[in-house]
Amino acid sequence: MNTHVNKLVIVGLGHVGSCVLADAVASGLYGEIALIDTADGVAVGEALDQHHATALDTRVNVTVHAGDYDDCADADIVIIAAGPSIIPSEEEKVPDRAALARTNAAVIRQVMGDIAAVTHDPVVIVITNPCDTMTHVAATEFGFPRGRVFGTRTMLDSARMRRLIADRHGIDPGSVHGLMVGEHGLSAVPALSLVSVAGVPNTGLGDAFGGVPYELGELAEDVVQSAYDVLNAKGWTSAGVAQSAIVLARAVLLDERAVYPTSGPLEGEYGLSGVSLSLPCVIGRGGVRRRVTPPLDATERELLGVSASAVRRAMADAGAGPR
Amino acid sequence: MNTHVNKLVIVGLGHVGSCVLADAVASGLYGEIALIDTADGVAVGEALDQHHATALDTRVNVTVHAGDYDDCADADIVIIAAGPSIIPSEEEKVPDRAALARTNAAVIRQVMGDIAAVTHDPVVIVITNPCDTMTHVAATEFGFPRGRVFGTRTMLDSARMRRLIADRHGIDPGSVHGLMVGEHGLSAVPALSLVSVAGVPNTGLGDAFGGVPYELGELAEDVVQSAYDVLNAKGWTSAGVAQSAIVLARAVLLDERAVYPTSGPLEGEYGLSGVSLSLPCVIGRGGVRRRVTPPLDATERELLGVSASAVRRAMADAGAGPR
Amino acid sequence: MNTHVNKLVIVGLGHVGSCVLADAVASGLYGEIALIDTADGVAVGEALDQHHATALDTRVNVTVHAGDYDDCADADIVIIAAGPSIIPSEEEKVPDRAALARTNAAVIRQVMGDIAAVTHDPVVIVITNPCDTMTHVAATEFGFPRGRVFGTRTMLDSARMRRLIADRHGIDPGSVHGLMVGEHGLSAVPALSLVSVAGVPNTGLGDAFGGVPYELGELAEDVVQSAYDVLNAKGWTSAGVAQSAIVLARAVLLDERAVYPTSGPLEGEYGLSGVSLSLPCVIGRGGVRRRVTPPLDATERELLGVSASAVRRAMADAGAGPR
Amino acid sequence: MNTHVNKLVIVGLGHVGSCVLADAVASGLYGEIALIDTADGVAVGEALDQHHATALDTRVNVTVHAGDYDDCADADIVIIAAGPSIIPSEEEKVPDRAALARTNAAVIRQVMGDIAAVTHDPVVIVITNPCDTMTHVAATEFGFPRGRVFGTRTMLDSARMRRLIADRHGIDPGSVHGLMVGEHGLSAVPALSLVSVAGVPNTGLGDAFGGVPYELGELAEDVVQSAYDVLNAKGWTSAGVAQSAIVLARAVLLDERAVYPTSGPLEGEYGLSGVSLSLPCVIGRGGVRRRVTPPLDATERELLGVSASAVRRAMADAGAGPR
Repeated sequence: MNTHVNKLVIVGLGHVGSCVLADAVASGLYGEIALIDTADGVAVGEALDQHHATALDTRVNVTVHAGDYDDCADADIVIIAAGPSIIPSEEEKVPDRAALARTNAAVIRQVMGDIAAVTHDPVVIVITNPCDTMTHVAATEFGFPRGRVFGTRTMLDSARMRRLIADRHGIDPGSVHGLMVGEHGLSAVPALSLVSVAGVPNTGLGDAFGGVPYELGELAEDVVQSAYDVLNAKGWTSAGVAQSAIVLARAVLLDERAVYPTSGPLEGEYGLSGVSLSLPCVIGRGGVRRRVTPPLDATERELLGVSASAVRRAMADAGAGPR
Repeated sequence: MNTHVNKLVIVGLGHVGSCVLADAVASGLYGEIALIDTADGVAVGEALDQHHATALDTRVNVTVHAGDYDDCADADIVIIAAGPSIIPSEEEKVPDRAALARTNAAVIRQVMGDIAAVTHDPVVIVITNPCDTMTHVAATEFGFPRGRVFGTRTMLDSARMRRLIADRHGIDPGSVHGLMVGEHGLSAVPALSLVSVAGVPNTGLGDAFGGVPYELGELAEDVVQSAYDVLNAKGWTSAGVAQSAIVLARAVLLDERAVYPTSGPLEGEYGLSGVSLSLPCVIGRGGVRRRVTPPLDATERELLGVSASAVRRAMADAGAGPR
Repeated sequence: MNTHVNKLVIVGLGHVGSCVLADAVASGLYGEIALIDTADGVAVGEALDQHHATALDTRVNVTVHAGDYDDCADADIVIIAAGPSIIPSEEEKVPDRAALARTNAAVIRQVMGDIAAVTHDPVVIVITNPCDTMTHVAATEFGFPRGRVFGTRTMLDSARMRRLIADRHGIDPGSVHGLMVGEHGLSAVPALSLVSVAGVPNTGLGDAFGGVPYELGELAEDVVQSAYDVLNAKGWTSAGVAQSAIVLARAVLLDERAVYPTSGPLEGEYGLSGVSLSLPCVIGRGGVRRRVTPPLDATERELLGVSASAVRRAMADAGAGPR
Repeated sequence: MNTHVNKLVIVGLGHVGSCVLADAVASGLYGEIALIDTADGVAVGEALDQHHATALDTRVNVTVHAGDYDDCADADIVIIAAGPSIIPSEEEKVPDRAALARTNAAVIRQVMGDIAAVTHDPVVIVITNPCDTMTHVAATEFGFPRGRVFGTRTMLDSARMRRLIADRHGIDPGSVHGLMVGEHGLSAVPALSLVSVAGVPNTGLGDAFGGVPYELGELAEDVVQSAYDVLNAKGWTSAGVAQSAIVLARAVLLDERAVYPTSGPLEGEYGLSGVSLSLPCVIGRGGVRRRVTPPLDATERELLGVSASAVRRAMADAGAGPR
């Protein structure tokens, strides 16, 4: 008898993790969701709150419960949202990613150590920021097979980019084909030369749909700014990244082999290695099945190098990567 | 040309309101969602965060934006989650509902006044606690037609009750037929004599499914306790009530004429009037289309009277109701 | 590595089976769906048609393909919709269920033999009519564990009953709690004494919601008639039963332990055994986990006995059951 | 009070129309669906069959009923699937589109005349084949505003194209960006020069994902062949086109402004006019809000001209277009 029931484990139930939980319950894809958090009672509270909601007739009867690392043993997917998602730095009006790298590297090492002590079977999706550095730590230091561990970003940056382009031309972001590569965050690179809508490249979007097409620098800035706008207004960002993680988890669970930009240790792509960055990847059973190198133009490749350097600095802060 | 696009307005974007927003976006039912909040920037931040998420391919292209009360003019539904959802009182380990009544009556009067200055057309769903008192204020003081304004609770209490019964007998809460009536909160009454699963009454659930059937007092206590367990563990409860509001909004939007326990001013039901309580109601276009009085047993009716007294006290605190 | 992907096999791709397929694809729950049909090419055609539709952005990337019985080896669920769903008999204006019993018993025995030669692991859901007799054959003759094989009906009859009651009182059928028991079809028994809406019993529905409450005989007739109305108008019925099967399959896949009326060999319930009938059952991983005997009134129990006799006749036609 | 409930009318309940109905019910977006068919009782039967299914707890309480053209008066959207969807021609192994053009032009003129006698308000989506010719008749002869009437195709051809490309490279078709233009059917043109996956153009897909990239002629043939494969195997194609129509209807209902390839009378695009063809269009409230002309390469433009000629011949058969 096949007794396997689709199972998700969420580690870290802060603003982002609780949003991941809500989206996971709403997806209707899981029979069991286990929650792990260091804060006393938070996992219990979130579990119970969602558990109550499953009695409403729009919800399947998923079992949501506080758990521990043993729950990873028969899980399909583990999503890590532990650690502060961002440390705002008042003077500079930008978050302090270096401090985050140090703090969260310790968090990730503890979480991954606890998971690895139990199992290497589930796919592990890392949300914790700085996402690329945390992904590098998680993917390289705990003996997980290649591709089994990956980070959600720049899937979120790409969503923001497509939304901005869509808004400028008055259309559905679902119709905008495009992605961001590199580091999640300040140095993320919009692959603007590859953007298209129904086959119309970015430069032609004004004629086709009205509105003024974005230029590269302006778009990169607006994506970062739109993240800060959310951050400054509500204190954190959660909706986009949580849904990104759930979409990626579905691609794993159903073996969709969908192509999404996710982060992982490069192995020579664009001449880069020993660093984790986001590039488009084929996501299916087992995690990342392939990493793809779209034909970036010269400027985009240069910016990708800059982005890699930014990640290397964060990795140094976290004591991660090759020595 | 029919140019109407399904439109929702959410007033108050705290823990509950932001959860309502997330569920509304996920429902795929709305073309436009406008957000109103007094806190500077919160509505903008929440709107932008969800706006980014709409670029993910599991989402429809709903326009989410910060708005103002003019947005109510062409809205189908307004959901009010403004005001603190609960004021914990450390000594007693229970929230101080009297303080809430005073504070939030002022909030609701301002919100409803602002809505009524623009329109009486949309259905207004009140979440703000103490829900029955706030619903009474909103439904009776601003000239809205009968049934147009109602409160979400005890839809949430009922979900908790069904979840508890389901857990005790190891089954899906969707299979448990039953509801709570009266005040949302401490004095809510489980209509246990009316509970059934596949036609089996509560007293027979042990034989049918295993486990020990609930008794009335025990169940009433456990429902209240399970709310406190969430509250104490995470600081607020949000998932169940947010999804309740979205389910009710759907019933209105699609004129489903579904029967859910919601709160509104009674007009002689069980001999009660001049007070708002939850009873099962038919929900469709225009709001509450009918209020139903199921055959409660003697104990349940007595408890309903007690519950009405509790609401009257909160109403007095809020300066609401007949004088 | 957990490599299991949710998998469904559908046997028989006629009007009902193709509808099951469409609902399965739309559910978003499966990573692989394999189709088996004796008619040359039909499985290929249906698979390809749905395969094309998966490219639309409302669909997950499920792999739909024509397969064979080896596909059952790693399937979670097999749904059998093989054989003619009904043989209309012009003179009597009712279908000839005896002829169906003979024809489809041979079909089911071949299908189940082919499955059993490969595996006894998946849950098998039987749709083929006469459903109770076919379920009895499938559940008892091929060595499957108790509860692993069950039939969809009277889940469909119950849906029709709740729809009829809902229409009479102008409400959502989702708010009507009730079920039919016994044989799927002519002798199905509405357990009217157990029907309730928000705790209001059938006799009180007129006062509570308007409209005249059903009486038992009238309701039983109307349920049968409404099936004929569909049958006579379009030649078959498919939407209700297909969605019933998909709801049941979800309960299995996610181990929902939901209570639905499904058919299987009785073991002394209401004094009946050696015959398959529908009673409410707890559906989860492994299939039927419990069978429930709600407190029918005297008339309903008598009608259940009549219904059992009707099934025994069909079973005799099919050479099924104890000798 | 806003009393509008999302309403859909479906004209023609054959294999395709009944599939549109099933998808519409499953979408959960409509409060009312009215069905019109000339065949006695078919609309009643389909309505009743789906009406029963709405009692299952995965369905909203949509009112499905047989109706007449007066139902168009307050409808948001009318979908026309009337007429035979295809007339197979045994000798040539290809359907006889000329015969279809004559037969169905009469059908469309009657249907559109009946609609226009009642209202010009709803958006009208034409599925009936030959789709471009039927769309031309419907859009130009009955006084409907520009963009209000459009045809589903080549949305379906595009889905097939993306599925074929996805299968060749082992990925999710949702990740393939690309479309077909021109006539729906034999002469449809894959805009292969505009295809991309994560920014990788068609020519690079082999290196990026494995598999041999398609060439233009081969792809055009395979798309047509895959339609015939469905047609020959099951007698008609329905799943893809039905879901296409429902996706388009959602874009209208929620004013999504999504860009999909749909058919309508050209007005000088690529030098073509007086003929209906599929080009990418922005779909929102009111129907087609913009038509887009992506930068086709020389071969694709030439093939588009050939495709236009094919439609003109069908239009001549139908007595449609400028004289």
